[in-house]
Amino acid sequence: MEKITVKVAAVREMMQREFQTVGLPQEQAELVADAILDAERSGVVSHGVVRAPVYLKQLRDGIVNSSPEIKIDRYDGVVKVDGDNGLGIIVAEAAMRECIAAAKKNGICAAAIHHSNHFGAAAYYSRLAAAEGCIGFICTMAGPTMAPYGGKELLLGTDPFSVSFPYASDIFTIDISSSAVAKGKIRIYARQGKQIPQGWALDADGNPTTDPEKAIGGIILPMADHKGYGIALVVEMLSAILSGASLSAESTGMFGVSSEANIGHFALAINILHFLPLIAFESRAGAWLEMLANSKTRADFERVLIPGEIENTNREKHELEIELDSDLYDKLFQK
Amino acid sequence: MEKITVKVAAVREMMQREFQTVGLPQEQAELVADAILDAERSGVVSHGVVRAPVYLKQLRDGIVNSSPEIKIDRYDGVVKVDGDNGLGIIVAEAAMRECIAAAKKNGICAAAIHHSNHFGAAAYYSRLAAAEGCIGFICTMAGPTMAPYGGKELLLGTDPFSVSFPYASDIFTIDISSSAVAKGKIRIYARQGKQIPQGWALDADGNPTTDPEKAIGGIILPMADHKGYGIALVVEMLSAILSGASLSAESTGMFGVSSEANIGHFALAINILHFLPLIAFESRAGAWLEMLANSKTRADFERVLIPGEIENTNREKHELEIELDSDLYDKLFQK
Repeated sequence: MEKITVKVAAVREMMQREFQTVGLPQEQAELVADAILDAERSGVVSHGVVRAPVYLKQLRDGIVNSSPEIKIDRYDGVVKVDGDNGLGIIVAEAAMRECIAAAKKNGICAAAIHHSNHFGAAAYYSRLAAAEGCIGFICTMAGPTMAPYGGKELLLGTDPFSVSFPYASDIFTIDISSSAVAKGKIRIYARQGKQIPQGWALDADGNPTTDPEKAIGGIILPMADHKGYGIALVVEMLSAILSGASLSAESTGMFGVSSEANIGHFALAINILHFLPLIAFESRAGAWLEMLANSKTRADFERVLIPGEIENTNREKHELEIELDSDLYDKLFQK
Repeated sequence: MEKITVKVAAVREMMQREFQTVGLPQEQAELVADAILDAERSGVVSHGVVRAPVYLKQLRDGIVNSSPEIKIDRYDGVVKVDGDNGLGIIVAEAAMRECIAAAKKNGICAAAIHHSNHFGAAAYYSRLAAAEGCIGFICTMAGPTMAPYGGKELLLGTDPFSVSFPYASDIFTIDISSSAVAKGKIRIYARQGKQIPQGWALDADGNPTTDPEKAIGGIILPMADHKGYGIALVVEMLSAILSGASLSAESTGMFGVSSEANIGHFALAINILHFLPLIAFESRAGAWLEMLANSKTRADFERVLIPGEIENTNREKHELEIELDSDLYDKLFQK
């Protein structure tokens, strides 16, 4: 696939305009463009600019509400968020901002979110919390692509979650799915004509496969067997049962749906300062992570990485310019 | 190893007496015996009665404080717990009880715990919360047995965490380590003279090994590569940095230490009733888990299991009697 180098500012401006054209207020269009570009610049391109045409179509078709009245109800130390079928980015950001503000006052706050939609990369929201001196956590259910451990029916999503915290002058982030692998990675193997490892997927009949094409039309397996299965169930319990959203098994996927999907998430912020001075936390975490990064490596590993480090470096590298697939570029700019 | 069938009541009585003999008040001796027997009856024998002689020796030698003044400081919606070097079971139980009580009022509460010790099976505490209508979470750092992803130094613990929630008439529980495998499982392979799978461990020089003896003297790997590594770092950040306890890399292990270990944990309780009626949560969760359990299985799998189901069944089966290794029995009863 041919790549085209584009200025971040130009893509930002184009997306802001497009999202306003389909009905978003300026501020929300800016937020959506920012979240999409954040993922793209981080190197998480599966959740980057490629999603813009999908979100735009959902808004244009009225499947997603372009002027939602997001309802945030506080019950003592927790909040319930009704996204009114708005874009997931707008709903999740509002929920996490509420959690951060409440955590600053009370030390901790959780939000159960329903009537939302696909929110892009989870790390965007946990990092918002870390940038405010909090430990941030967010998870979301996802369309059914995974089987339970030992099973062969599509009853679970990849059910990702993200945790971030500040250290030294940077942010630690994990953003991982509960599955052995993301479908995007299997697609890369398919394009390269390579077999996938055992343990990633089953074919549509539930038999183990190393054929990427069969895996794409088949069933993803949980990471680390029963462990990923258990974690996926916790993610769905928090983001769907606690919130009143659809479970993966009840949903038909995040895209291509013809009516409201009732996607759910769960967000949590913990204010570090309620436990110890922020500078003490950040400097101890920084020294520890540096020690890990400088520790001896196994053969074939150049260095021990700090989670989030690659994405942080990518974002700096792509502050001004990103590379887009030429057909995505055409779709966005040449219509 | 020869097994001896023993009445649970007899083991309980013996342990209560022994723990009182080394200085615990009656109520605390009862709690410790209960937590140990709970793990034993669940089939988690690595955290069961086998630990009693270890805890007793630590108390007898004064390495663990038999009359700690546990300090629970509340800051708005969160608590800091100083265990005063008491037994981990006593400290973690007190912290989780405090979280549950506060969550009932405010919807959520977290506790960062330091100056504690090894607390046995994590599931005991998350299940306490679930039994009270809460979602319970607890995690703990652990002695250094694991390398970072890509590394070969013993800088991380197996860093387990547990989540529980109530459903229908039972409790869902995951209690998993961040490592590919527990050392106890490698010991079973060693006893059976079997090779371990690739990806579980390195030898002491950091080379991949399938020899269980070399793995026991070597380095455990994180589960699912970078994912388990990232989760372990989150567990240590919560249970050691936020709390002011020792990091795994700073500790010399949980046992055999000659001075205070400053073990740390992190506990969280979320009151379900703050989000929806408990019965609505439990019945939806129950129907969903039943649907998963009744879904089609892969070849070689009899049934899809609900996390915690095996342990719940084991506890019922061993309500009155357990089986102990004869030499453990002798150590406890025949001295």
